[in-house]
Amino acid sequence: MPLVRITLAQGHPPDYYRAVAEGVHQALVEHASVPADDRFQVIERLDPEDLHWSASYLGIQRSSAVVFIQVYLNRGRSLEVKQALYAGIAEKLAAAPGIRKEDVLVNLVEVSRENWSFGGGVMSYPPAP
Amino acid sequence: MPLVRITLAQGHPPDYYRAVAEGVHQALVEHASVPADDRFQVIERLDPEDLHWSASYLGIQRSSAVVFIQVYLNRGRSLEVKQALYAGIAEKLAAAPGIRKEDVLVNLVEVSRENWSFGGGVMSYPPAP
Amino acid sequence: MPLVRITLAQGHPPDYYRAVAEGVHQALVEHASVPADDRFQVIERLDPEDLHWSASYLGIQRSSAVVFIQVYLNRGRSLEVKQALYAGIAEKLAAAPGIRKEDVLVNLVEVSRENWSFGGGVMSYPPAP
Repeated sequence: MPLVRITLAQGHPPDYYRAVAEGVHQALVEHASVPADDRFQVIERLDPEDLHWSASYLGIQRSSAVVFIQVYLNRGRSLEVKQALYAGIAEKLAAAPGIRKEDVLVNLVEVSRENWSFGGGVMSYPPAP
Repeated sequence: MPLVRITLAQGHPPDYYRAVAEGVHQALVEHASVPADDRFQVIERLDPEDLHWSASYLGIQRSSAVVFIQVYLNRGRSLEVKQALYAGIAEKLAAAPGIRKEDVLVNLVEVSRENWSFGGGVMSYPPAP
Repeated sequence: MPLVRITLAQGHPPDYYRAVAEGVHQALVEHASVPADDRFQVIERLDPEDLHWSASYLGIQRSSAVVFIQVYLNRGRSLEVKQALYAGIAEKLAAAPGIRKEDVLVNLVEVSRENWSFGGGVMSYPPAP
């Protein structure tokens, strides 16, 4: 159910983008109860001048390797799950492709369960009758 | 009021993208009470390797023709309207440009009515005084 | 905390995009209590045929210079703040790079404070203990 948008600079080798996408997905599986085969992601590669980011907000030193990750997902994850997810995504991307944790930004956009159709023209998670 | 983002692979002829955009809009008009002239859409054409999608999640067989459709709209559509909208979008895109229903994914992102300005620097749907 | 997505046609000079991004940020600082160094923006430049917009919805005359601005931010701004923000963004973009106010569209997507990590793998705005 999550739909993930990953926005970062163009110009890296293909493996770099694949590692980012894989790392974000693995963190969702390990920390947010997402099934392994529930993977839907959009990678957005942009000219660096189309990414604006603060080098110091909240005392965190960011670089041009900054990655914006927006996760659209169902409402209701606990505070603890969200904290574990943030930590997990940063750890995965630090391991591969080797992005500093300071450069990993995450934003969760929560929606209702009834707000998804994953194909076939049907509501994927209808309420119990 | 909806703002629609349609994300799919690049490489199709221009008519293909126009048919997708038109079909999504027609379904919103027919099933979700959207005025015919209330059309605001973004088409995002990506390198296929920048789209990650499960070929089997929920038992639905997807292909590289997969389309992600995010609809930002006002809160409050009923369950029945949402179900009709999912079915309607899939039917329209099956009719033209001929996308298998399994490849049509929809996500609704609901916001408050006061969260829109459709131009002129004013709130488009202010609450009644 | 806001993450801002600005979508408009490609083909303008670089200064044009920089002025749009700067104007949106200044309006957020002046009208929505956003710190000056809290700036995170994505500029999305698209082929004009990938932008669909109504030339007349709500009686507002739009042109191909239309700009879609989505602001992901914490829930809870008042009606008055939102109205001032819409007016402020339109005024800034009218001043530079000189976009007609009719062509400035804004959509706010509100999320919970706990839904952000601005780097380092930590929740940026945890609730008070």
